[in-house]
Order: sequence, then C-alpha cells, then structure tokens
Amino acid sequence: MKIGYLGPEGTFSQIAAVKYIESLKNANNQLIALGRISDVLEAINNGIIDEGVVPFENSIEGTVNYTLDSLIFDVDLYIKLEIVIPICHNLMTRHTCVGKKPKKIFSHPQSLAQCRKYLASHFPDVETIQVLSNSEAAKIVKESKDDYFAISTLPASKIYGLDIVESGIQDSNHNETRFLVVTKNEVSSLSGKTSLVFSTEHKPGSLYKILDILSIWDVNLTKIESRPMKDCLGKYIFYIDFECENANNRLDAIKMLKRKTEFFKFLGTYNILK
Amino acid sequence: MKIGYLGPEGTFSQIAAVKYIESLKNANNQLIALGRISDVLEAINNGIIDEGVVPFENSIEGTVNYTLDSLIFDVDLYIKLEIVIPICHNLMTRHTCVGKKPKKIFSHPQSLAQCRKYLASHFPDVETIQVLSNSEAAKIVKESKDDYFAISTLPASKIYGLDIVESGIQDSNHNETRFLVVTKNEVSSLSGKTSLVFSTEHKPGSLYKILDILSIWDVNLTKIESRPMKDCLGKYIFYIDFECENANNRLDAIKMLKRKTEFFKFLGTYNILK
Repeated sequence: MKIGYLGPEGTFSQIAAVKYIESLKNANNQLIALGRISDVLEAINNGIIDEGVVPFENSIEGTVNYTLDSLIFDVDLYIKLEIVIPICHNLMTRHTCVGKKPKKIFSHPQSLAQCRKYLASHFPDVETIQVLSNSEAAKIVKESKDDYFAISTLPASKIYGLDIVESGIQDSNHNETRFLVVTKNEVSSLSGKTSLVFSTEHKPGSLYKILDILSIWDVNLTKIESRPMKDCLGKYIFYIDFECENANNRLDAIKMLKRKTEFFKFLGTYNILK
Repeated sequence: MKIGYLGPEGTFSQIAAVKYIESLKNANNQLIALGRISDVLEAINNGIIDEGVVPFENSIEGTVNYTLDSLIFDVDLYIKLEIVIPICHNLMTRHTCVGKKPKKIFSHPQSLAQCRKYLASHFPDVETIQVLSNSEAAKIVKESKDDYFAISTLPASKIYGLDIVESGIQDSNHNETRFLVVTKNEVSSLSGKTSLVFSTEHKPGSLYKILDILSIWDVNLTKIESRPMKDCLGKYIFYIDFECENANNRLDAIKMLKRKTEFFKFLGTYNILK
C-alpha cells in the first residue's frame, strides 16, 4: 500500500505515519513524503496513493483549517483512523554553543508561550524572538554565528543538525496533535468517533434543531467547529465529531441529520490509535 | 484619543482604523501602528492607548485565532464596534521585474491561504514565503534584488512604490474581513451584535442546553466557534455572536447563560460600520 504524508521527512506527520504502519499487520507498505496537505489529499482522490496521513487538530492551536476545508470543499474522502501524537518542545543550538548562555532564543509565539515558566526560571534575562514557525527558528540558529538558541521539534533538530540542550521544556505536558488517516473508500468502523459536516437553513434556531436530533439519539457531541461558507461573512458550514455507543442509534441519528440539513457530508466512523 | 492598529502602515487594519476615525465626530485622534496583535491588545490593557483596531474574522479563512484566543485568555477588554472591510489581494513587484516569473512570493499566511487556488493554477512551482504582514511582504520585495513578488494591499503598493501585476487574485470575490474596535471599558450599545465566550460541563447535551436558552429568548445565533481549552484535546471554549431585537430579552438571556456555564466572559454588544 502507498501511504502519503505531509513532508518533508522528519515532520510530526511522518512520526504519525510511521506509528500507523507499525500498527498494520501487512508489512508491505511504502511511505511517501508530499509537499503540501493538498498534495496528499489530491493524490488519494486521484488514486496515485492508497491512503494519506494529515494533521487535523492540535490541543493548543486548534483545528488545522486547511485540512478541514479540503475535506469539506475540495475532495470526497473518508477518515479511516485517528492517530494522536504528543508534542514535545526542545531547547536546541549548534554543537559549538552547547554549555553557553543563550544570547537570544527563537521560536514561534505559541511555543514561547507554552515554555513561559521554563524560560522565566532558567533564562529570565534572555531576549526571546518570535518567528513564524519552530522550523524557521531552528533554521535561523543553524545559519547564525551568534550564541542563538531555538525552541523547536525533534524532527527539526535532525533536519538542521542542532544539539538538543534540554527536552520536554513545555509548561504543560498536555500538548497533542490529532492526525487523520484518509482514504478514497469508506471503511467505517462499527464503533468509535463519527465525523460529519453540514449546513443548516440560515435562520434562528437552525443549529439548535440539529443538536436536538443528537440529544434524541443520546449522541455525545465531542467537537463542533464552524467554517465560513466562503461566499459571504456570516454563513457557515458546521463540522461535528460525536460518539454514540449504540450503533443503531448512531445510524438513525445520521439518517435524520441528513434529512434535516441543507448540505451534508459523512466523513466516517473510526477508532483512535494512541 | 490614541488608537492603535496592527501595523505597519499599509495593512488592512490601517484601512479599517482610518474608516473608524472618519466615522468619529471628534477629530482629535491619533493613529498608532503597532507590530503585533498582542501589542495592540496589551497596550489597551495597560492604558498606553485608548482603543485598538484588530482583525477578527475573514469570510474565507474564518476567525483570526490569535485575536480570539487573546480576548478569551490573555486580556480583559470589550468590543465597541465592528468594521467590515472588503479585501482585495494584488500580486505586485518592482517595476523591473514586471513580466518575469516570480522566484518567490511573499505574503501573510492568511493572504496566501486566500489566494490558494490562484497560486496553485498560475505558480504551482513557485515557493511562497510567510511573513508577519502584507506590508512587510511589500517591503521585502522593495528592498530585494531578486525576482521577488508580494501579495499585498493597494496602499502598501503605493507606500513601497511597487507595480501591481494582477489585481483581485483572491479565490472568492466575496472576501471581507471583520475588524474589531476594542476598548478597556465596556461601552455596550443598546442594540446590535452581542459576543461572548463560555465553557460548559464536559458531558453529553451541555452545549444543547445552552442553545436551548438562546431559543427560549428568541435569540438569533449568528456565529459559533470552538477553541481548544489548551490543557487537553477535546475540551473547548465556545465563542458565540448573537442578535436579539428585544434588549430585555437579550439581558435575560445573558444572565441565564452566565448561570448555566462554567467559564463566562461577556465581550460586548456593538454595532457594525459597513
């Protein structure tokens, strides 16, 4: 089986993809790094690869809008499995700077915020510089000649050949990312999480009526997200995740939701690989 | 009055801020460009400026997560007014590069996302570089000697003396952005849109109960957004916008929502400047 993932090599998507193929009994699988989330999803859509692994939601940053929008608007694919990967922040620098005091520390604003207590206790007087990504932080440190340090990921330390000075420096250990295994054909599980998207009539109480259906069938809504319809401000498509122990109730709820929504797309019922 | 906005000069935030001060009767206002959304919000919080203008939601890309998360978690501020600005993206470069193939295209991540289809069809193999603002993208192109192009605003093309190669390259022509005028003290309007954030108990039907309250008071929910609680996957804070013609009903609905939610933050009732 050909399995694509969001590359380059060393990304968290690759870590998720490796975890996924290790869980498969069939050993005959090939991992393929692709440049963009859209490349992965379109390659599945066009039958070039069999499955794909893409990031979907981070416990701090929230939903990866690009993945969600593509599943809603651009491709007709199904979710086969969810893979949860813990996210770990590391202080890193060039080999020659190990043991020195950082002159500046570079990272993404969210990563700096997530390591605020560590930085305040270890480096209270060191300037922190916000950059657009953790990967860019590692690149800046690699290319500099100063005693610059980065807060970045293990894969980035390998890509840019940096030494990890301290690992797991985030203030909270509850930083995880959900990845999805996406396929062309529906392979719904008998139990697990169900994901679907829908739009309602644009009038008061429309969403309330939909949640009423979930309530009738004892469905546990675990996530709701609104995404703009893209044609005007104030019109949304809703994405929901829900769990329902009774498979018949779940199928009845889905049938009723389909009847009572304008746009409707079932994305799959699937298990979680932790 | 000192009014801060997300700078530098030439951003859509400046266009919104200018539109705002033009609507004020008092002419004695000073516009101040600040580097980041957090700089604007913190300057209001600390009393350095009186009000701030920040981007909040785009009709294609959805909510500006950073602004929403800051209003939820970092500062205690109120929304005074909403300003809606039509968004037009332009591909621009230095006069000598017009007609050449771009080596790299620079812009803000949201702008690149809003021109995703245009870029994929016209420049599928050109590297796109994310920078902190559209204005910075124009500045980089101005100062470079390479065949660099920027996606930026009309005012930025004038400030940096760049030629517009193609105008209106966004994927949808219904591209508008909501900006918020944010203040330290509550200045709620008697009518208009109401925004608030809350969390519910983490059990089945919790959100349904909240929407039930809105239904009781004939409130029209116009937007619902979930943001991660940041301590574990699957726990959310909800942001809602709603409209309610009857002011007493609105106040009763807010009172009841406050009673029935765990975390609750009222952000304001405000009008829209179109």
